[in-house]
Amino acid sequence: MSQSETKPFDYIIHNVNIATLSDQYASEDNPYGVIENGAIGVNDGLISYVGDSFDKNDSKLNATETIDAQAQWLSPGLIDCHTHLVYGGNRANEFEMRLNGVAYEEIAKAGGGIISSVEATREATEEELFRSAAKRLQSFIDEGVTTIEIKSGYGLDTENEIKMLKVAKRLEQEFPIRVSTTFLGAHALPPEFKDNSDGYIDLVCNDMIPKIAELGLADCVDAFCESIGFSYTQTERVFKAAQKHGLKVKLHAEQLSDQSGAGLAADYKALSADHLEYLSQDSIDKMAKSGTVAVLLPGAFYFLRETKLPPMDELRQAGVPIAVASDSNPGTSPAQSLLLMLNMACTLFRMTPLEALQGVTINAAKALGLEDKVGSIEIGKKAELALWDIDHPNQLSYQLGGNNLVKVYNSINKK
Amino acid sequence: MSQSETKPFDYIIHNVNIATLSDQYASEDNPYGVIENGAIGVNDGLISYVGDSFDKNDSKLNATETIDAQAQWLSPGLIDCHTHLVYGGNRANEFEMRLNGVAYEEIAKAGGGIISSVEATREATEEELFRSAAKRLQSFIDEGVTTIEIKSGYGLDTENEIKMLKVAKRLEQEFPIRVSTTFLGAHALPPEFKDNSDGYIDLVCNDMIPKIAELGLADCVDAFCESIGFSYTQTERVFKAAQKHGLKVKLHAEQLSDQSGAGLAADYKALSADHLEYLSQDSIDKMAKSGTVAVLLPGAFYFLRETKLPPMDELRQAGVPIAVASDSNPGTSPAQSLLLMLNMACTLFRMTPLEALQGVTINAAKALGLEDKVGSIEIGKKAELALWDIDHPNQLSYQLGGNNLVKVYNSINKK
Ligand SMILES: [Zn+2]
Ligand SMILES: [Zn+2]
Repeated sequence: MSQSETKPFDYIIHNVNIATLSDQYASEDNPYGVIENGAIGVNDGLISYVGDSFDKNDSKLNATETIDAQAQWLSPGLIDCHTHLVYGGNRANEFEMRLNGVAYEEIAKAGGGIISSVEATREATEEELFRSAAKRLQSFIDEGVTTIEIKSGYGLDTENEIKMLKVAKRLEQEFPIRVSTTFLGAHALPPEFKDNSDGYIDLVCNDMIPKIAELGLADCVDAFCESIGFSYTQTERVFKAAQKHGLKVKLHAEQLSDQSGAGLAADYKALSADHLEYLSQDSIDKMAKSGTVAVLLPGAFYFLRETKLPPMDELRQAGVPIAVASDSNPGTSPAQSLLLMLNMACTLFRMTPLEALQGVTINAAKALGLEDKVGSIEIGKKAELALWDIDHPNQLSYQLGGNNLVKVYNSINKK
Repeated sequence: MSQSETKPFDYIIHNVNIATLSDQYASEDNPYGVIENGAIGVNDGLISYVGDSFDKNDSKLNATETIDAQAQWLSPGLIDCHTHLVYGGNRANEFEMRLNGVAYEEIAKAGGGIISSVEATREATEEELFRSAAKRLQSFIDEGVTTIEIKSGYGLDTENEIKMLKVAKRLEQEFPIRVSTTFLGAHALPPEFKDNSDGYIDLVCNDMIPKIAELGLADCVDAFCESIGFSYTQTERVFKAAQKHGLKVKLHAEQLSDQSGAGLAADYKALSADHLEYLSQDSIDKMAKSGTVAVLLPGAFYFLRETKLPPMDELRQAGVPIAVASDSNPGTSPAQSLLLMLNMACTLFRMTPLEALQGVTINAAKALGLEDKVGSIEIGKKAELALWDIDHPNQLSYQLGGNNLVKVYNSINKK
């Protein structure tokens, strides 16, 4: 109890079941770190009391506002640690053509594929990108998401990559959500660099990263290391440029083949390596050592009808923290629900409901380097909390669609 | 134009893109039956004008209320033609135990499986069942669902089956939705009839069906024809009893094995046969002849991680109408989203977005025998309409989670 005798809490939520998702409260018998019939006190946007539900006459727990949660469930606000939320257009027509049996070449000719998103993003004004992303963002907010990562990567030139990141920053200003921004210039090869991917990586490293770092537009730098993306060597160049400018790294790795990208990412102390269906034991060992989070993306796995599962047991045995994210993007995961990803993590990847929930709270916070601020309910962390009308936190993973969110409690001072 | 010169429309929606899903407007080049920049006039809850957006000075189109839809998209209200929405408890704990590797026998001992839902449903009061189903129903209503089918089948005795159907009827009274009720006494064998399934079918045929028919509680009778359910012969006894009491039939058929159930259903002019992963060509031919709708349930396929797909091409070639439904139930499809089922129908069953949308509108109406009233936008049908903030109706299938519903227009007089 950290409260002085004189200053009351800004607010208390009592008569609430708390799923803390915190090591401080969890045990073998209580893996969610549940406090039944508990209470939380908040001061200046920080959690300053976590414990038993209080007696009204207990002066230590007096508060300006007292909220009776009627025995509902409180969890940390959810965190989506991997999205491409900002883009122009959508690819519903391409989706429909594909299902009508139109050949890939014809779709490409008709302007399909990632380059169609690049063109639409380049053509869109900042205002247009903001408005379309805002609608998608609202879907996540409505599900209790209080932190979201947003990547660039459909601009693929300095001006348009900066435009995307500015939109992400503006979303944070105008919505009750914490936004972590990631520069993903090395997402795809823009048409003007056809057959010159090294030349494009020059631009990424020598022009984009320095400018974006100077403008303070990105918390992190990411790349797509894949046979159809950028090579191990090119990825390493991007990482070196990021480090030079004081930016942390993460990586799209081992989605379609093993490129040893996750191991490389771990070598550069990456916050996370993401996708990982084709991850090797060698890279797992490196990730465990460096504390790199494995971010799994069941929405893309589902949407692409993949069959190769990420190495769940090996990740567990090595003690690699596992996060789950939506990968929200127009081409391979047009997802607007993080709750659905919980069910897909369980149903498709055989994660447990506990692992899935850790994957969108504490481990997602780690994947963004924000575990000191958010991701669990502990004294000193930000009061970014979601209240649910459920019988148990496992219900969040069990349900297929639907949304039992009652209310979000969000601190005002985000940073 | 069916409007008299004197009486204005109750309301007009204009400046709207209409996806009629009606043969009257569809063509090879316009498979959704789209009317761009159109208008709809409604009188006494019925669609009485469908056509071009009107000129304000056109006296033929004057109305008490005129709604500018701002070029958004109007579709028929969605129809979920197969749900088990009313039940006690949930099975999130069982879901979690299974993912933690607990063996099936242990789960059964701990009170898992369908019998746990039967026990919870029997123990629940009508009020408790109403309240828990109401929450789930609201999820569907929030997605533009204006007609929903609800089955009994967790009571498994006369009193509790009647209790479930009464709850379904009360949901219709208290929510802005049309409810079609189905008696599914032959869903599972209740514990008190262990090793005496014929004895239970006696009760279904001789006691339950007559009473429920007399009380007017069911529009239809259903059964679970499967190796782990009821036999072909028992199913036929149920169908005969239903027909004797003037009730139409439908069937859970060919989900886990081919029992020739769908063919039997077609022989009895069933409105639909549902699931159908193991459907034979012989049964397909019978369904085509009898006009029995194939109701596909991708949520259960997904949740059970099935791999055997329903015979899509054969169904298409035979001209069997295909519907898509949520199968919302606690054990095998805890789904609370019909929009998600559109995506799953496309992603998992390779249906086209058009087929998926027909599957939750006009073909779902056929599966409930309601195609004269709802399921498409045509003069004379009920004004049960959903307005969407989308670029094209294919976006409803493309999206994975999220909800672009703007508003539902629902007629007041439902029947
Ligand atoms: Zn991604
Ligand atoms: Zn069913």
